[in-house]
Amino acid sequence: MTDSHLENGNFDWGIDGLVAQLRELRVQSLETRSRRDKPPKLPSRKELQTILDGLGAVLFPNRLGLPDLNDEGIDYFVGHTLETLLRKLYKQISRELQFVAEQHGLEGSVHGQALAIARQFAVELPTVRILVDSDIQAAFEGDPAARSPDEVLVCYPGITAIIHHRLAHILYRLGAPLVARMISELAHSSTGIDIHPGAQIGESFFIDHGTGVVIGETAVIGKHVRVYQAVTLGAKRFLKDDNGMLVKGNARHPIVEDDVVIYAGATILGRITIGQGSTIGGNVWLTHSVPPGSSINQASVRSELFQGGAGI
Amino acid sequence: MTDSHLENGNFDWGIDGLVAQLRELRVQSLETRSRRDKPPKLPSRKELQTILDGLGAVLFPNRLGLPDLNDEGIDYFVGHTLETLLRKLYKQISRELQFVAEQHGLEGSVHGQALAIARQFAVELPTVRILVDSDIQAAFEGDPAARSPDEVLVCYPGITAIIHHRLAHILYRLGAPLVARMISELAHSSTGIDIHPGAQIGESFFIDHGTGVVIGETAVIGKHVRVYQAVTLGAKRFLKDDNGMLVKGNARHPIVEDDVVIYAGATILGRITIGQGSTIGGNVWLTHSVPPGSSINQASVRSELFQGGAGI
Amino acid sequence: MTDSHLENGNFDWGIDGLVAQLRELRVQSLETRSRRDKPPKLPSRKELQTILDGLGAVLFPNRLGLPDLNDEGIDYFVGHTLETLLRKLYKQISRELQFVAEQHGLEGSVHGQALAIARQFAVELPTVRILVDSDIQAAFEGDPAARSPDEVLVCYPGITAIIHHRLAHILYRLGAPLVARMISELAHSSTGIDIHPGAQIGESFFIDHGTGVVIGETAVIGKHVRVYQAVTLGAKRFLKDDNGMLVKGNARHPIVEDDVVIYAGATILGRITIGQGSTIGGNVWLTHSVPPGSSINQASVRSELFQGGAGI
Amino acid sequence: MTDSHLENGNFDWGIDGLVAQLRELRVQSLETRSRRDKPPKLPSRKELQTILDGLGAVLFPNRLGLPDLNDEGIDYFVGHTLETLLRKLYKQISRELQFVAEQHGLEGSVHGQALAIARQFAVELPTVRILVDSDIQAAFEGDPAARSPDEVLVCYPGITAIIHHRLAHILYRLGAPLVARMISELAHSSTGIDIHPGAQIGESFFIDHGTGVVIGETAVIGKHVRVYQAVTLGAKRFLKDDNGMLVKGNARHPIVEDDVVIYAGATILGRITIGQGSTIGGNVWLTHSVPPGSSINQASVRSELFQGGAGI
Amino acid sequence: MTDSHLENGNFDWGIDGLVAQLRELRVQSLETRSRRDKPPKLPSRKELQTILDGLGAVLFPNRLGLPDLNDEGIDYFVGHTLETLLRKLYKQISRELQFVAEQHGLEGSVHGQALAIARQFAVELPTVRILVDSDIQAAFEGDPAARSPDEVLVCYPGITAIIHHRLAHILYRLGAPLVARMISELAHSSTGIDIHPGAQIGESFFIDHGTGVVIGETAVIGKHVRVYQAVTLGAKRFLKDDNGMLVKGNARHPIVEDDVVIYAGATILGRITIGQGSTIGGNVWLTHSVPPGSSINQASVRSELFQGGAGI
Amino acid sequence: MTDSHLENGNFDWGIDGLVAQLRELRVQSLETRSRRDKPPKLPSRKELQTILDGLGAVLFPNRLGLPDLNDEGIDYFVGHTLETLLRKLYKQISRELQFVAEQHGLEGSVHGQALAIARQFAVELPTVRILVDSDIQAAFEGDPAARSPDEVLVCYPGITAIIHHRLAHILYRLGAPLVARMISELAHSSTGIDIHPGAQIGESFFIDHGTGVVIGETAVIGKHVRVYQAVTLGAKRFLKDDNGMLVKGNARHPIVEDDVVIYAGATILGRITIGQGSTIGGNVWLTHSVPPGSSINQASVRSELFQGGAGI
Repeated sequence: MTDSHLENGNFDWGIDGLVAQLRELRVQSLETRSRRDKPPKLPSRKELQTILDGLGAVLFPNRLGLPDLNDEGIDYFVGHTLETLLRKLYKQISRELQFVAEQHGLEGSVHGQALAIARQFAVELPTVRILVDSDIQAAFEGDPAARSPDEVLVCYPGITAIIHHRLAHILYRLGAPLVARMISELAHSSTGIDIHPGAQIGESFFIDHGTGVVIGETAVIGKHVRVYQAVTLGAKRFLKDDNGMLVKGNARHPIVEDDVVIYAGATILGRITIGQGSTIGGNVWLTHSVPPGSSINQASVRSELFQGGAGI
Repeated sequence: MTDSHLENGNFDWGIDGLVAQLRELRVQSLETRSRRDKPPKLPSRKELQTILDGLGAVLFPNRLGLPDLNDEGIDYFVGHTLETLLRKLYKQISRELQFVAEQHGLEGSVHGQALAIARQFAVELPTVRILVDSDIQAAFEGDPAARSPDEVLVCYPGITAIIHHRLAHILYRLGAPLVARMISELAHSSTGIDIHPGAQIGESFFIDHGTGVVIGETAVIGKHVRVYQAVTLGAKRFLKDDNGMLVKGNARHPIVEDDVVIYAGATILGRITIGQGSTIGGNVWLTHSVPPGSSINQASVRSELFQGGAGI
Repeated sequence: MTDSHLENGNFDWGIDGLVAQLRELRVQSLETRSRRDKPPKLPSRKELQTILDGLGAVLFPNRLGLPDLNDEGIDYFVGHTLETLLRKLYKQISRELQFVAEQHGLEGSVHGQALAIARQFAVELPTVRILVDSDIQAAFEGDPAARSPDEVLVCYPGITAIIHHRLAHILYRLGAPLVARMISELAHSSTGIDIHPGAQIGESFFIDHGTGVVIGETAVIGKHVRVYQAVTLGAKRFLKDDNGMLVKGNARHPIVEDDVVIYAGATILGRITIGQGSTIGGNVWLTHSVPPGSSINQASVRSELFQGGAGI
Repeated sequence: MTDSHLENGNFDWGIDGLVAQLRELRVQSLETRSRRDKPPKLPSRKELQTILDGLGAVLFPNRLGLPDLNDEGIDYFVGHTLETLLRKLYKQISRELQFVAEQHGLEGSVHGQALAIARQFAVELPTVRILVDSDIQAAFEGDPAARSPDEVLVCYPGITAIIHHRLAHILYRLGAPLVARMISELAHSSTGIDIHPGAQIGESFFIDHGTGVVIGETAVIGKHVRVYQAVTLGAKRFLKDDNGMLVKGNARHPIVEDDVVIYAGATILGRITIGQGSTIGGNVWLTHSVPPGSSINQASVRSELFQGGAGI
Repeated sequence: MTDSHLENGNFDWGIDGLVAQLRELRVQSLETRSRRDKPPKLPSRKELQTILDGLGAVLFPNRLGLPDLNDEGIDYFVGHTLETLLRKLYKQISRELQFVAEQHGLEGSVHGQALAIARQFAVELPTVRILVDSDIQAAFEGDPAARSPDEVLVCYPGITAIIHHRLAHILYRLGAPLVARMISELAHSSTGIDIHPGAQIGESFFIDHGTGVVIGETAVIGKHVRVYQAVTLGAKRFLKDDNGMLVKGNARHPIVEDDVVIYAGATILGRITIGQGSTIGGNVWLTHSVPPGSSINQASVRSELFQGGAGI
Repeated sequence: MTDSHLENGNFDWGIDGLVAQLRELRVQSLETRSRRDKPPKLPSRKELQTILDGLGAVLFPNRLGLPDLNDEGIDYFVGHTLETLLRKLYKQISRELQFVAEQHGLEGSVHGQALAIARQFAVELPTVRILVDSDIQAAFEGDPAARSPDEVLVCYPGITAIIHHRLAHILYRLGAPLVARMISELAHSSTGIDIHPGAQIGESFFIDHGTGVVIGETAVIGKHVRVYQAVTLGAKRFLKDDNGMLVKGNARHPIVEDDVVIYAGATILGRITIGQGSTIGGNVWLTHSVPPGSSINQASVRSELFQGGAGI
């Protein structure tokens, strides 16, 4: 075989055979999942990225929208962007509902329900703006390196994550949990912050640095809570039913009350409660509730551990 | 100096001088690396991103390919995409082989070898589909928040990482370790999961959340293993030869047997073995082997540590 | 409501009302921040991404520039790219200075100052090349998995992070801290490595794996320092002034002297000094200075901790 | 007003008033056309351009498709492209049918009819390939400047025009005349050759140079006809009905029999017949039939004209 | 020289020498034009294309704007598009005025004048909509092949040309003749219809087919005029001043009164008047005025020509 | 069949059968052209468009290159653009030579010859700049509507056409006639001016308006010639050899000497000579030589015609 042979494109990959093998595997996979026919469509990650970019622009047109907007044009930009992205969102929600309906063998159109979700989502957008304003202010006040709220908005990955979360959580609550999850993962990929869309988070929430933060589906977080990088609010263990299958959906993540600070690397597991105003030190491993005003650090946890503390 | 002066573009950057200085530094750098002539080309990160997108589409055309594929068109899409990306991959592999050949002063064409690698890679693609199907199923069964295998495929960063790894590992094994590494880093950048392409990983592997996971070059992982965020399977120390240079390539990362679960933040270092069915607790720091069925947590490690445990 | 009704586009989103509500919230937000008029513009993340891509290409045209450059064309490429990106950078710096001037109610043009910063930045580019060459060499020598310096340059996220940092730090020092911060966050998003642009870092710096690394604003790092994933060089506590506001800018992060190695997960907090040649073990939590040549690991910290160690 | 005033974006365009005026004009326009509600959608010129590019690629994949196709991949490319563009074409046809239905107040879905048209269009594609092959051969044989049939295919605007026409004519015949017309205008814009999609054109048709050629809706052209630039096959006059409205659709353009050559600038008007094998000279103005084998030039027309010839 | 030599990129083009030669020629060219310094910038063809696309969308949002607009979003789209393109247009007009000012050695800012032009242009947009509506109606009534006014709008090159002209003419009149001319040439390139922006054209103007139509700078065209392909309304001769230089700007093109029809290929030259309601036949060559109601064809012109006809 | 059926994508196009039919037709076509194997590649129209855009930018960087170039950056831009496009051009020339070699069954590499052509082309670029400068000056002096040479360069389609021609003609002369022809057709498509790349054209050539101009392969045009729209310099008849095949390449188009003006619509056919300084009137049909200083118009041609003039 010569190079010029290759220049002529005679690669002999065996494409026909590969295509046949891959088709066979697809068919088997569908049968395994009891969908013997063709697979229903899923929402598109790429479309959702476009929608989220648009939502950022609608909420903060001067900062996350177009750089050259002026007073006369700004409302037209907001209205046009909003109208466009709501239609796109409606379509993605429809895909999720259709997908679920086919899984359960349901018939009938999902469009009405999808539209209702998208409309209610729109209604709640101003509230998201108010909440994110409080998050920005919390970050500005909580970080000595922050020079202005505007810097926080355009620089801080924690703000990116919380904007995505507050939007995703609405959709999760309204009945589009898959679209919500995909939105959360967009933020996870760009920030390293992994907040399940089911988590309930109060106003003025601040995540600093953020890489490695994990917040679980049933976590409940109060107002004015501050969290640093690599903090986990996770489940301690998973319940299984009599068939050995995981029980899905039960409350299994921590409740964090107002004004709590959790330093970097702390791991808080299980349906426990961190009382109001508590401080959890860095790298602490915590699996039981603490009363309001507690101050927990590695030493206190460890000393407790060695004073007969039950294992994990 | 006035603004209008700037409008006319008289910035006086001193481009000529900068270009000359930078050229001088490039030449010195080449001489340092014993390549006095021009630098050989390397594979392109951007091209590899395109290739990986295509491979995802080929393996899962309905989920990671085009949103509107139908039965009649799907095989044509798969075949066309496959043919296109294999040619691109062949070219990137050629670049790596050419680069290595020039470093070692070898002559002769690398095209035949590059083609052989690309062809064998193609042959193994159906096996990758089978393995990733097992990974998806493992994630679905292992996460109470997962609603369907399809959601897992499109949402979970752990799946993105393992698809990249299974493809990169083939190339690593066939003799294109640089292309393999660049593919791994694409996944690392988008997921925060850092799996060296040399790692050997069995079927049904599930990484949850994933940010901060590091799996080293010579790690060996069995079947049905589950790993959470921030887990490290690393080297304990690096061997140096008589000249003080690092010894490269020796087995220095853990062996994890079948059915092991490793919780978030655990650090496992050195060529040790985690016996089948063991559970390693969160944040555990482990540098010695444990027998099958072990259940290791912070308390057990620490108590051992203070009972005369040798340091690290 | 029927599907065809939707096909005709009668979604009734209530766009007019939403636009009005969002406008009202924007106005309130501006008033809160004492900017009753329209908001000044900020630097653009997207533009900065383009500028950073160009700077990588200028510094390493054969590796991060165009794949097909040859000797005859390379200086033209470098000169053209440089000239283009310096003008863009100048514009972004102007935006920051204008923004700050408006916040402080200053008048007069900022263009002269912006140009001075951009010019000095250009002057320092060759130095950045020299420093990054030392970083690449350090990574090649420090990682047994590295096969060549070229592989390090195109694969290692730590190199991506340090290139961004060395460029951002110049701008931070010259008086464009917001542009600097935005550049740092570009690296943070793609690598999971969070280095504040204020940090001072000596030559031959190597970050391996890197996800979760956090290096604070006033950290000072010597030459030949090596750092692994999830290492934090952070502040221990924040000072507040008499009004309860955070004191901004004081030295609050560690000093790391030459030839120090810090293993994965170590947390080093406060204005302490890690003496030359020390080794800090994985997951160590350290809040006091250690002398040159120290070797600190979890056991030693803990034993100290339980021998009357003050809390954190 | 100062420049810096403009920099701040206070242009005062009066957007609100303009938007209101333009809305009012749109509403009036709809009322004039008896469509008091919202306007139905029309086919998209941009989509049709994409579809036509795809059809060229399907018919001549090696010449108008991808430059690097090889034997193994070509059918996959053709099949994938075909499947994609037929779906797009179906959608554009649906738009036309829907538009017409709304104009006539018809109800019921047009999708079945649109699909039938698209399917029949697909069936006729191989015939188009055969016809265009004959056109290419005719150009190669008819132009001394042509070096190969391949050059003709990629260079000659006449070939671009006839490919568009042969595809548009099928759609015109099957009942999608608006889509057909839009396709014709794509060719008109890029070649200056204006062939109405209703024209019937036999095999081996060659247009040289082509700019300014106009061929009317009811023209009928035989086999092996050759036409040069600026030739018009037009209508002599338009019939009006009793209300003074133009009668649409009646046969009003020339019939050109087999083997006719028409030189540049000739104008042939009305439902006349140019007999088989005739030659029409450059710039001739012809409004009456000529028998087979005629040779018409300016002199002959003029002499006839002045020998008592009836006016035009 | 071998192929592999080329693969390594040693082409030896002599770039340095070419760059130097071309620089020398640029400098000479500037000196010739009495601009010894750097050349002022000109408006950008590409930007004007974007602006014209936007103007089409603003005037006909449902037909030339976005395909999926609905009632709720349409005004936001129009307002946003309008605001964006007016700013762009203002910038292009500024470039023209700046260019002219530098040619004449004038100082002082042109921004105020540019803004005044752009604002007045905006004020006249609704009038353009009314005029183009009349043009569309004229085409629908004048072409038996037209099925609906909407088809005319999206298909007919004559409509594309007249939309461009009506917009360009405003700018020509307001004092931006270069921007106006560049807009006209955009239409010329895509339609083959060449209307100088100075031409004055009344309502209900219809150009059928259009390729090759040329209408000169000082032409005056009344209402309800119809023109076919390849019609020229040109100058008969150019006046020169005492220095032999062309006199620019004098009235030198025809006046065409209301209700005139001019058939394909007619050439009408000089400042003559075609009286109201006249019909000019195809290919007629006309250089003298004709009274209202005239019907001119080739025969009549020629017979006149030979009855002692003065030359042309 | 229902709409939702279609939503699921069951279109049943019969793709498999169509792909098979089209493949069969491709194979037949190759056999017909005596290329039984796979078709050689041709130059790419799209690549050539990119190359021509680059050449315009290299020749006139301030007008056809980047809008914001300044003195310091311009040579770098020119050098970088030039180096890039010459490599691309070399590749396209190689394709043509390879294509011709395969047609003639030749073996051996064409790369050396392609490189020689590309290098010589580069050498001649400064000459093209000089010639086009003369063309621009001619247009400025010849058109009363032209306000500056810069306006001519950016507005006039005749300048676009002559830039393309002067570049294409070099390639035609050096032995790449297919690439040359494709370049000519790019200009033809955007301007309606069709100049065969073989035509020889002297300095200071001006085409006004231009739509419909056709200039044949063997035409020879002197200096300071001016031509208006729809002028044809064509062949009178084509010679055939004993086999009835067209004789290709013989001199068959007019010679136009210096200082000739040819008005719109004139048709000049055959290897005749238009003597220096002659004026050819509009719409004249001319097939015989005229001496220097002639002034030909319709009347003179016609009177000659009827005074016993031999037919055409």
